[in-house]
Amino acid sequence: MLIVDNIGELVTMEGPRAPRRGSLQGMVTVIKNAFLAAKDGKVIAVGPRAELPRFLDALQQSAEQDQRQDAEKSQEETTVLDAGGRAVVPGFVDAHTHLVFAGWRYQEYVMRCQGATYQEILRAGGGILETVRQTRQATEEALFQRALSFLDEMLSLGTTSVEIKSGYGLDTENELKQLRVIRRLKAEHCLDVVPTFLPAHAIPHEYSKDREGYIQEIIGTMLPLVRREGLARFLDVFCDEGAFTSKEARRILVRGKELGYELKLHADELRNTQGAELGAALGAVSVDHLCMISQEGVRALRESDTVAVLLPATSCFMGKDHGKLGRKLVDAGIPVALGTDFNPGTSPTTSMPLCMTLACSMSGLTPAEALVAATWNAAWAIGLGGRVGGLQPGMQADALILDASSYVEVPYRFGANLVWKVLKKGKVVFQANKGRMVNRSES
Amino acid sequence: MLIVDNIGELVTMEGPRAPRRGSLQGMVTVIKNAFLAAKDGKVIAVGPRAELPRFLDALQQSAEQDQRQDAEKSQEETTVLDAGGRAVVPGFVDAHTHLVFAGWRYQEYVMRCQGATYQEILRAGGGILETVRQTRQATEEALFQRALSFLDEMLSLGTTSVEIKSGYGLDTENELKQLRVIRRLKAEHCLDVVPTFLPAHAIPHEYSKDREGYIQEIIGTMLPLVRREGLARFLDVFCDEGAFTSKEARRILVRGKELGYELKLHADELRNTQGAELGAALGAVSVDHLCMISQEGVRALRESDTVAVLLPATSCFMGKDHGKLGRKLVDAGIPVALGTDFNPGTSPTTSMPLCMTLACSMSGLTPAEALVAATWNAAWAIGLGGRVGGLQPGMQADALILDASSYVEVPYRFGANLVWKVLKKGKVVFQANKGRMVNRSES
Repeated sequence: MLIVDNIGELVTMEGPRAPRRGSLQGMVTVIKNAFLAAKDGKVIAVGPRAELPRFLDALQQSAEQDQRQDAEKSQEETTVLDAGGRAVVPGFVDAHTHLVFAGWRYQEYVMRCQGATYQEILRAGGGILETVRQTRQATEEALFQRALSFLDEMLSLGTTSVEIKSGYGLDTENELKQLRVIRRLKAEHCLDVVPTFLPAHAIPHEYSKDREGYIQEIIGTMLPLVRREGLARFLDVFCDEGAFTSKEARRILVRGKELGYELKLHADELRNTQGAELGAALGAVSVDHLCMISQEGVRALRESDTVAVLLPATSCFMGKDHGKLGRKLVDAGIPVALGTDFNPGTSPTTSMPLCMTLACSMSGLTPAEALVAATWNAAWAIGLGGRVGGLQPGMQADALILDASSYVEVPYRFGANLVWKVLKKGKVVFQANKGRMVNRSES
Repeated sequence: MLIVDNIGELVTMEGPRAPRRGSLQGMVTVIKNAFLAAKDGKVIAVGPRAELPRFLDALQQSAEQDQRQDAEKSQEETTVLDAGGRAVVPGFVDAHTHLVFAGWRYQEYVMRCQGATYQEILRAGGGILETVRQTRQATEEALFQRALSFLDEMLSLGTTSVEIKSGYGLDTENELKQLRVIRRLKAEHCLDVVPTFLPAHAIPHEYSKDREGYIQEIIGTMLPLVRREGLARFLDVFCDEGAFTSKEARRILVRGKELGYELKLHADELRNTQGAELGAALGAVSVDHLCMISQEGVRALRESDTVAVLLPATSCFMGKDHGKLGRKLVDAGIPVALGTDFNPGTSPTTSMPLCMTLACSMSGLTPAEALVAATWNAAWAIGLGGRVGGLQPGMQADALILDASSYVEVPYRFGANLVWKVLKKGKVVFQANKGRMVNRSES
């Protein structure tokens, strides 16, 4: 058992524990001067420090009873970790990433900063298909090792659960390769990993003159195969101008749903193509991006159980201000979650704290809403709702001890990493280190 | 002597070595597969690796000559540091900070995210005067220790020179206290610290009904006293709506110039008050912020030697998109520099890499221009031009070895810290550490 004692501010979160229309929004609930106890990977108690002796007494009694029944059970040690008055929050849940890829695309960033249009970048060999080219060439082992280092980077920034999409293979062999890498990450890294199949991310060049051929391959071959191999829980489609039309997206998603996938959708990012409406109509678990969502889209989401996943780092990195989009959706009663959208083209960041700052400063959320969006609601957006994203008894003990006195400092300290320790399933899996400094002038 | 060998990409920078109208812009110059040699705190040689043996031979010969003349001189050891193919760039120069302060102001951030106006925040006791209240209460030692930890944070993010302003004292006693802290930071931390006196940051509450009285105190008492004590090189005024008028700013700056201060100006941040024109007319070394600069302001700067300091983290944190301001100024031929504006109200970030990303993504600079703005031009903006901000022979050996193959990755890897080692005056003063991970699942 692990007891984290002397917590200055413990954020436990509250909210419905099953999907319920119009009420999926978590809420920040705070216990000041608190403790948290975790056992067998789960939170077993939270409360004010004053209650800790009583909790320990009860535990002792129960242990004595257990001892009579089972001598081994009582031998588990209790470790007490002094949080030193720091704030503790649930581990961050990154609801949208494209984390398995080869290469970077920084030359494309240079071109874009120089004013190149999307079309010019495509003509110069840039864009998604450039990453597809490099990812196809990469070995499964190389992709795995690189992705592992990205997960480590995320862990050091406080992410304890992450959704990862395929979509840089765009043929059966290479989509399977990406999905196997995701499966191996899930097995070998301590983070919770949720796999999403995204074959309709772009039309691969070999089908550039035969869209229908590629869609047929997705529907006829890839969807059933990936399902059979149990490689993905979610199916996602990039429904937008320059990607897949609403009609194409619907065909793919409907077939996927029949096969047992849960659905996600890249919707209304570059243009409004009624993606939000489509996602809501098909019962998608989430619709993501939504920069160009219409009033009809907002209404459709409000009438659904679908979570809106916002990706503010992408807007900022692409130099776009989408106004107070988060405010608009939250005010409409729509559950909002956050993700990094980590990918080499439009969002090369692994940082959920950065996304929280941007969600507040640019997208109009309050710090409390941003934390809910980065934890409780994000868990619901990737099918882990009620299990992670909060620190109520019975939930997984995924927690961050912050070098801060309040969770508000996370979005406030723009660009800083306040993570001191990360607990995953009740165990310390990361401990920050500021590096070695020889920073004083010689006298 | 220190030799950094096996540098994949060495950015040395080029540009005029003395202020010259309309041509103060540095330029990124790159040597691939390079070495850098530093001695007595300065760069003594840079070049392609192929030239390293010849350089060492020449050095050896010169050492032998020296030995005949001076036995001790030759005993200095030569250390070789293998950069492993990494990129090396000049240390970052943060041209604008308010780093010495007590407390945070995150409750104010919550209010602003909830839609509170500037006036509402002021009425609730927020804004600059809240930090003044806390800073006046703090001891000099407490302010020093906290500021020291901020400098450490900056160092770990690659900043090797920094300008620091007073302005949270707003009376003689407390402005002097802040300036003494800055002097001690300069003496005791390895960073180069440039002190700026900012008594006209706000009207303190005791003068709220007597603006003229405070201005008289600045001009009559504070300016000569601080000058006499040699506590500040620069004088700065916050010239804006809600702060000081152009007329007031002019009076203070003119008197300061007579007393021997070099000038800076917070100009045209919230409203256009012809701050850029005023700064240019008075020969200010820099004018800072400029979000609302007019065409006349752009023309005035183009005809001056004044550097434009942009603070894109402030715009972003305040939820404002000021369009491609950086692009506009660079295209007009104005030297642009960057700063964090680190302060507890409008920019709680210490990260120059973050500012570079925002300068590219939001403000329209290219990665090369952003690097110049964060090094060569920023050095000129704080009076260190030609000495730091580049890695040409004769300049201070302040360099960053990056976990990256190109400097372009610094703005591209949004929110990441790519600093591997920091060299200050030719010595390694920081070595990154990723923290302790127990990140693999138990099998």
